[in-house]
Formats: sequence, structure tokens, C-alpha cells
Amino acid sequence: MGADKTVMKSTIYYGPGDVRVEERPVPEPLTPQDLVIRVVRTCVCGSDLWPYRAMDASSAGKPIGHESIGVVTQVGSAVTIAAPGDFVIVPFPISCGECAACRAGFESSCPNGGYFGGAEGQGCQSEYLRVPHADGTVVNVSRALASPEFADDPAVPHDPHDFDDAMLADLLTLSDVMGTGYHAAVSTEVKPGYTAVVMGDGAVGLCGVLSAKLLGAERIISTSRHEDRAAIAREFGATDIVPLRGDDAVDAVMALTNGDGADAVLECVGTAQSFDTGLRVTRPGAVIGRVGLPHGVTVPAEGTFYRNIGIKGGPAPVRTYVRRTLLAAVLRGQIHPGHVFTKTYTIDEVPQAYADMDARRVIKALVRVSEV
Amino acid sequence: MGADKTVMKSTIYYGPGDVRVEERPVPEPLTPQDLVIRVVRTCVCGSDLWPYRAMDASSAGKPIGHESIGVVTQVGSAVTIAAPGDFVIVPFPISCGECAACRAGFESSCPNGGYFGGAEGQGCQSEYLRVPHADGTVVNVSRALASPEFADDPAVPHDPHDFDDAMLADLLTLSDVMGTGYHAAVSTEVKPGYTAVVMGDGAVGLCGVLSAKLLGAERIISTSRHEDRAAIAREFGATDIVPLRGDDAVDAVMALTNGDGADAVLECVGTAQSFDTGLRVTRPGAVIGRVGLPHGVTVPAEGTFYRNIGIKGGPAPVRTYVRRTLLAAVLRGQIHPGHVFTKTYTIDEVPQAYADMDARRVIKALVRVSEV
Repeated sequence: MGADKTVMKSTIYYGPGDVRVEERPVPEPLTPQDLVIRVVRTCVCGSDLWPYRAMDASSAGKPIGHESIGVVTQVGSAVTIAAPGDFVIVPFPISCGECAACRAGFESSCPNGGYFGGAEGQGCQSEYLRVPHADGTVVNVSRALASPEFADDPAVPHDPHDFDDAMLADLLTLSDVMGTGYHAAVSTEVKPGYTAVVMGDGAVGLCGVLSAKLLGAERIISTSRHEDRAAIAREFGATDIVPLRGDDAVDAVMALTNGDGADAVLECVGTAQSFDTGLRVTRPGAVIGRVGLPHGVTVPAEGTFYRNIGIKGGPAPVRTYVRRTLLAAVLRGQIHPGHVFTKTYTIDEVPQAYADMDARRVIKALVRVSEV
Repeated sequence: MGADKTVMKSTIYYGPGDVRVEERPVPEPLTPQDLVIRVVRTCVCGSDLWPYRAMDASSAGKPIGHESIGVVTQVGSAVTIAAPGDFVIVPFPISCGECAACRAGFESSCPNGGYFGGAEGQGCQSEYLRVPHADGTVVNVSRALASPEFADDPAVPHDPHDFDDAMLADLLTLSDVMGTGYHAAVSTEVKPGYTAVVMGDGAVGLCGVLSAKLLGAERIISTSRHEDRAAIAREFGATDIVPLRGDDAVDAVMALTNGDGADAVLECVGTAQSFDTGLRVTRPGAVIGRVGLPHGVTVPAEGTFYRNIGIKGGPAPVRTYVRRTLLAAVLRGQIHPGHVFTKTYTIDEVPQAYADMDARRVIKALVRVSEV
């Protein structure tokens, strides 16, 4: 199924407030290293809203979307990581798997790779997707299920055809938001017993809360200002909600931390205000973990120096975390990051999904494209 | 001896190129938490040259110097960490020992503390020194020697009176430069097998080389441009010397690292050029460890984000490192950071010591003030 289909539906960005679902050719492998998947689930990311809101430049007429899970339909001759029929997670970074960045587990900064969305056939909000550098990019869930780690585990479904909607939603978050929230938590060096502050209550911020909890934070302060999001933050492990911004947020966090500041700060927004507030509530010697794309952020060289404040983070090396920790946690049902999806759409409804996320009517929009 | 003396020699900063040794009152404890030491050894720091070279503001008529070891002469009534006669290291940061920064091991960013030099009676290039917040600030070497860790170790001299000049020089570096170089190495997260670049060949940079080696770096590239310093860098563990700056340094380091960049970068200068070069040779996902006081440095928020470059560091929590690792390494003779001292002066000769360091005639000037 799929290999003989030649036309697909694909979401195309045309300009601020204007995304359309159009017919495009089903992509083929362009190099021996490429594979193609039939997309099972995709979604709309907070960062897709930057061009949608005209806050980031993006070229009109380009496919959009960088989060997907699906079933392999075609593989180039050099691909060894998967075969047609395998169920895979496609992390948002394209990575060669061989350079120093990839070898160090930072494949999201691979100089030979890039990110999904933009190039023809490489937008994830589509029925099919071309995956370049497949061996360095995808996570093969089918093979993982057959591996010794999971094969004998009765808590894990053994056939992707048995994945229910909830499991597919959890797995889809591993293509970006759960891995990105986890990167914020790892970057800010959360340790057991820590007090963590999570800036931002989008899907990434909520996954940041879940990740801080997973890494042992004892107290987790979320800056959520929306009750639907605060409810998920609490479910994910937030112990305190500070629905404030700027000086008020700083005062509230300092009051909650006995004037000390937080041991860990997950910056999941990327605006100057969020970064600045995050820095101000970081206790001396702690690290701010940033995963929000910086927009107008400046890092004060001296102020951070005297307080020994570290700054770490960037695009999340999702694949590294998925293979190391997160796939197991999802397959075993230990975490349910898929709860960030509050509404499901068809591929034809993607423009509505953008409008709903833009208006904050949904936290994160899931798109059901096909079945396993 | 000392407690009945009322006048001492003390180095006073008057302005660019102008430090003088004058008579000042021997300091007394001002609070129950203070102690006073008779200084045995002190030295001139690269950072003392900033005001000497008119590159940093500093008030005329203030005592200068922040590195010392010595013998306790007086203790305030609340001091428990030492008694008169004890031999102590006085790290350059003054720290309360009780706040969140101190508890987290970042006492060099203690909001209740500060740094030696400046306040009357608190300049280290003097015959006596007042130590505020003594319990949170000093390292008591006499008590350490009597502890189970060292008491039965035949490799360790058991009485400070037996310390020879070389041991005193090694111990003196623990008040700042060895701890600061170590902070650069810890901040940049050196791990066994790593390739590290050390920006700067001052005493801190050289101690950074030694620290990278101590933490297991396999290849250590020093940017030394002076043969006397390069020789010590090699002795301390440098495998490569790149005597270049700017684009040329970047090209050379990238060539040495197969185009990948370094796994760890110790920024021990603090100028914009050094920091910028350091960032450019850092491989994606690595951390730049900075201990040079920033002068005109800007941290690019986006450039570091996409490459997942971390920035950590600040004033070194010397006391934490000395108690955890460095005192044992020095007492057991495993490291000889005192080799950064290339000339010894009397207290009266301190102005000459500044002039010699300023002219790079010596790497670091040791001042012999009294004997144990």
C-alpha cells in the first residue's frame, strides 16, 4: 500500500495565517540513504506558529511540519535501519549519524543535516514523507519491539498494529515535544530533590514538567496562565503554578524558593522576557536549559558570570533521548506525554488546527493521517 | 607572634602602574565570625593587572591582593573552623557558608560574601589579613592533616612546619589559580578521552591544562605564544601548542581536530577575541568553560543555540574544589601547580613584581612574606 500511489495531500505554507492542504507528488528516495514513510500521525508545533504569526520568515509555497510517525514504504539501496513495513518515529532533526555532533549525541546540531519542513517531500503534515540520512535519523520501533529489551516484557504491546490511539499519541510526542522538554530538563541538569521552574506552558513546557519529574525534581513550578494547561502541568508533576510574568513572576518564584532561586530552570518559550525572567530566578551556580528558539534574546555576559549561571540547550537531540530513555518509558506506559494533544484533526482540517492553536483553543493539535 | 604587632606592611593600589607598600594597622577581627592570619605566602594575579593596566576601575588607596596562605593569629568568638596556630588556605572568595549558593558548592557567588582585596585589612598582599565569614571561607590544612584521610598517609608531610618552598607554592595556587583553572575544566565538562582547548597561557590557563589532564583529557591544545609558558603547558599535559589568535587559531584547531572542533574549551582570558575564538572551535553540543573575567564579551544567543553550545563558569568555587579534590592532590604530590611561579619577591618588592608580570618577564610572581 502506498508505493503505487503517486499523489498525496500535503500542507503548504503560503504566508501569515495561510496554510493550505494541496496535492503534491508522493516523494521517492532521492539518494540511496533516503527512505519514505506513509505518515500515520503528525501534529502542529508551537514553532509552526512563528511563521503562521509572521514572527519568523519562511518561504511561501513550501511544505511545513516536522513531527511524524509512520510506516516505511520505500528504502534507498544503502538504508539498513529499516525495511518496508517497519513502524518508525521520525525525529524533527535530519542527522547524518557519522559526524562529531552525531557521535556526541547532539545530532540535532549535525552540520550535514537539517530539519524537516521546507524541502519538497519533507514536510511532515503530509500523507507521505521523505526521510534523508535515514540511518542517522529515524528510530525503528518495530525492531526495538523485537529486541531483547522489549521482546519479553508483558507490559509492552509487541505489534505496532496493536498500538491504540493513546499509544500513538505518546509515540508522536517523541518526534519533538517530549524530546524537547526532556532536553530542557537535561540541559538544566535537574537532579533528584531539585526545585525546577518551567517557563512556558505550551506542549514543550508541559513535557518539560514531565521530564523534570522523570529526572527527580521534588518541586516543580510551572508558569502556566491557562487553566487547561495548568491542569496538565499538575498531572505531569507540577507542584506550584505561578500565572505571572516579568517582575511579578520573579517575586513569586523567589518567595516560593526562600529567596534562593531555583536549582533548575527550563526555558521553553524563547522570548527575551521569558529568558530574562528565567535567568533572574536561577540560583547561583545553576544552569538555565533553553529549548525555545531565541527571539530577541540577549545573554548578559557579566551578569551570568558573577553568578556562575550556565546556559545550555538548543534544538533537542530527540533521537538520542528516545533511544536512551524515552521510547522505553512510553512503551511501558510510564509516561503519557500524548496528553498534550487536546484535539484530533484529519489532514484536510490542518488549516483549522493552525487556527485553533493560534487562538489557544487547543494546546496541541494531533492530525490522524492514516492507520498503522 | 604577631598578635602583639600593631603595624604591618600592606600593598596599596593607587592607580595605573602605581602600587605601593605602606604601613597599615594590623587588622583585628571586626565580627565574631572573623579571623586574622599572618600571611606566609601571597602572589600577584593576572586579574590584579587589569586595574594596574587601567583596564578595570579600582579605587585608589585600597589594599590589593586576593591570594594567600598563612597561620591563624586571632579568631572571633564564633569561629569554629580554626584556632590560633593553624595553617590555612584562604580562597579568594569570601563566603557565608550557609546560603543556597554556598550549599550548592558555588560559594564564589555567595550573595553575602565578596572577594579579598579592596576593604581595609582584607588585601592579601600584606603581612596580615582579616578573613570575614571565616567558617565559610577558609580551608584548615592543619586539621585536614590530622584527619583520617591524611593522618596515616606516609606520602603526606604531617606538620605544616615541614612544608618546603615547593609545597607552599603548590598550596598557594589553591587560593585561586589552580582552583580557577580547575573550574574551567569542570565547567567545560572535560571527560576521559576528550580533546580540550585551553585559551590563555597565564597561570590560570596553565592550571587549566593541568586540570584538563587531571580530568582525563587525552589531547590538550594550548594557545601559548611564549616559549617559557608553552614549556610549562607541556609539563602540565599539553600535547599541542597553537601560538595563534583569531581566524588563524580557529583554522589551526579545526585542522588538529579533523574539522570537528574540540570537546571542551577552557576560556581563561576573558577578552572578546578569546571568547569568540573559543566558541568557534567548540564542537556542537560541547560547553565552553569560562573563568576569565569578561571584558567586552558578547554571547551570541542564536549562534550558540543552533549548535547546542553551552556556556558555564564564573568566579571559581575554589574552596569546594580544594576540599573535594585539590588539597589531596597537592599534599600527595600528584600535581605541582606551583610551577607557575617563576620568581619570588619580598613584600617590599611587590611593586617590582607587578612591573615584571606586566612586562611578562615572569609568569606569576610569588611573594615570600613570612615562614610557617
